[in-house]
Amino acid sequence: MRKIIVIGIGAGDPDHITMQAVNALRRVDVFFVLDKGEVKQELVDLRQEILDRYVPDHRVVHGQDPERDRTTEAYVEAVDDWRRRRADVCQEMITANLGEDQTGAFLVWGDPTLYDSTLAILGDIASRGFEFETEVIPGISSVSALVARHQVSLNQVGRAVQITTGRRLAAEWPSDVDDVVVMLDARTAFANHVEKDAEIYWGAYIGTPDEILISGRLSEVADQIVSARAEARERKGWIMDTYLLRRGQGAPPPREAP
Amino acid sequence: MRKIIVIGIGAGDPDHITMQAVNALRRVDVFFVLDKGEVKQELVDLRQEILDRYVPDHRVVHGQDPERDRTTEAYVEAVDDWRRRRADVCQEMITANLGEDQTGAFLVWGDPTLYDSTLAILGDIASRGFEFETEVIPGISSVSALVARHQVSLNQVGRAVQITTGRRLAAEWPSDVDDVVVMLDARTAFANHVEKDAEIYWGAYIGTPDEILISGRLSEVADQIVSARAEARERKGWIMDTYLLRRGQGAPPPREAP
Ligand SMILES: C[S@@+](CC[C@H](N)C(=O)[O-])C[C@H]1O[C@@H](n2cnc3c(N)ncnc32)[C@H](O)[C@@H]1O
Ligand SMILES: C[S@@+](CC[C@H](N)C(=O)[O-])C[C@H]1O[C@@H](n2cnc3c(N)ncnc32)[C@H](O)[C@@H]1O
Repeated sequence: MRKIIVIGIGAGDPDHITMQAVNALRRVDVFFVLDKGEVKQELVDLRQEILDRYVPDHRVVHGQDPERDRTTEAYVEAVDDWRRRRADVCQEMITANLGEDQTGAFLVWGDPTLYDSTLAILGDIASRGFEFETEVIPGISSVSALVARHQVSLNQVGRAVQITTGRRLAAEWPSDVDDVVVMLDARTAFANHVEKDAEIYWGAYIGTPDEILISGRLSEVADQIVSARAEARERKGWIMDTYLLRRGQGAPPPREAP
Repeated sequence: MRKIIVIGIGAGDPDHITMQAVNALRRVDVFFVLDKGEVKQELVDLRQEILDRYVPDHRVVHGQDPERDRTTEAYVEAVDDWRRRRADVCQEMITANLGEDQTGAFLVWGDPTLYDSTLAILGDIASRGFEFETEVIPGISSVSALVARHQVSLNQVGRAVQITTGRRLAAEWPSDVDDVVVMLDARTAFANHVEKDAEIYWGAYIGTPDEILISGRLSEVADQIVSARAEARERKGWIMDTYLLRRGQGAPPPREAP
């Protein structure tokens, strides 16, 4: 049977790659890539560097990533439709290029289970009755990379941490949680919460030579982050950033049940 | 100046190790280990296997991890006190064994930023005025390993995910979130929520030869997990397990602000 491996390659530093990923890379006959309109050069470079280093004689097949409708208010429907069209493209790439007993792979930025649609696309293809085996190799996420660079814990002792999107944080601070990691934030949603007694640990292009790290009291560094972000985005044409917001100690965790 | 590297070694599979961690291991003069009373053989074996493979001529210094007071109701205070005593032990190990220009390391299970006290201990030591440099190398967490093995995403599209403890989940399902990862659960807290319309993706000893994976509708598989867990714990003398609970689609994510 055909096999598809979804391989997490880490969040920017080529040395984020795991031995498990390296071993998986070496079992791959064909690498599949969905080319996006907007080219984030770091993503292309990272993938190329990893392939050149570990699989010098690799074969890559490119497909054209369909455009997502960003004009509609129907966010979930737009993403679903986009995903279906991506599934069409991927299924076509696989059937046309992968022999019955061969192994293909998608290299995924960060960890493939965090805000990435590759698993959903493969699920969609499988639900059409197209048969193949799947394997998922975890990777260092931008969340792990962020907090490692800031040398802070993701959680406070005995407490919870929520990973959410800029869209959600812009709407409100999540209930019952003092530690919030924010991804996919195009609008500096932290700026909506400067009145909260919080610390921010922010990072852009983490793990790459362009890495920027800023941390401090949110009320004191929010403006600095907004400018640094705008300046970097202007200079490079795109940005990827993520951050941890940490409110004061809050209520102690619930007691051990007797 | 002395340097201490905190190195994430992954959550059970020695191949979870990253190239960044391997490169860091090779810069280390002394590895520090806190020996716990209860020996989890897999933890000892994983550490040994990694050291033997990447640093054949390693030097290890052991310290005795102080006991934590588990009888008191003052959970946070007990953990703080324990941490201070661990800091004493660690500071003593470092001063006695690490030269002024040498590099020491702590190898941490999974990702060092997730429910681990090593960073806090080093922070405590630093706050006493003991000077050293620190570096943190992210690792594959048991959370990433869990969902990779189940081949599911950590989050639903555009939605949030919360990482929390068994203690907290036993008290209540967290507000405003349908996807919850639970760690440090000694009481099968998922069993308190069988009436919720949720899926569970459970795993024990993930990445090791003893790995157990069970998934399905929570109401249908909860009993099976409770027995499998009790049986495994009995057989091996200890268990480490984690799980993702996923409630139905819930409300759609907030709309894009105009
Ligand atoms: C589509 S998600 C993919 C996340 C990825 N699967 C991971 O595990 O990091 C893209 C978001 O990840 C975050 N991100 C990814 N790489 C990053 C990096 N090197 N530095 C900062 N943020 C990053 C940003 O928040 C970005 O909007
Ligand atoms: C003290 S925390 C350390 C977590 C670790 N830093 C990480 O990133 O996974 C220990 C908890 O992690 C989870 N855990 C760690 N390794 C695991 C494994 N191999 N399989 C299942 N759960 C694991 C369990 O929930 C356990 O109670």
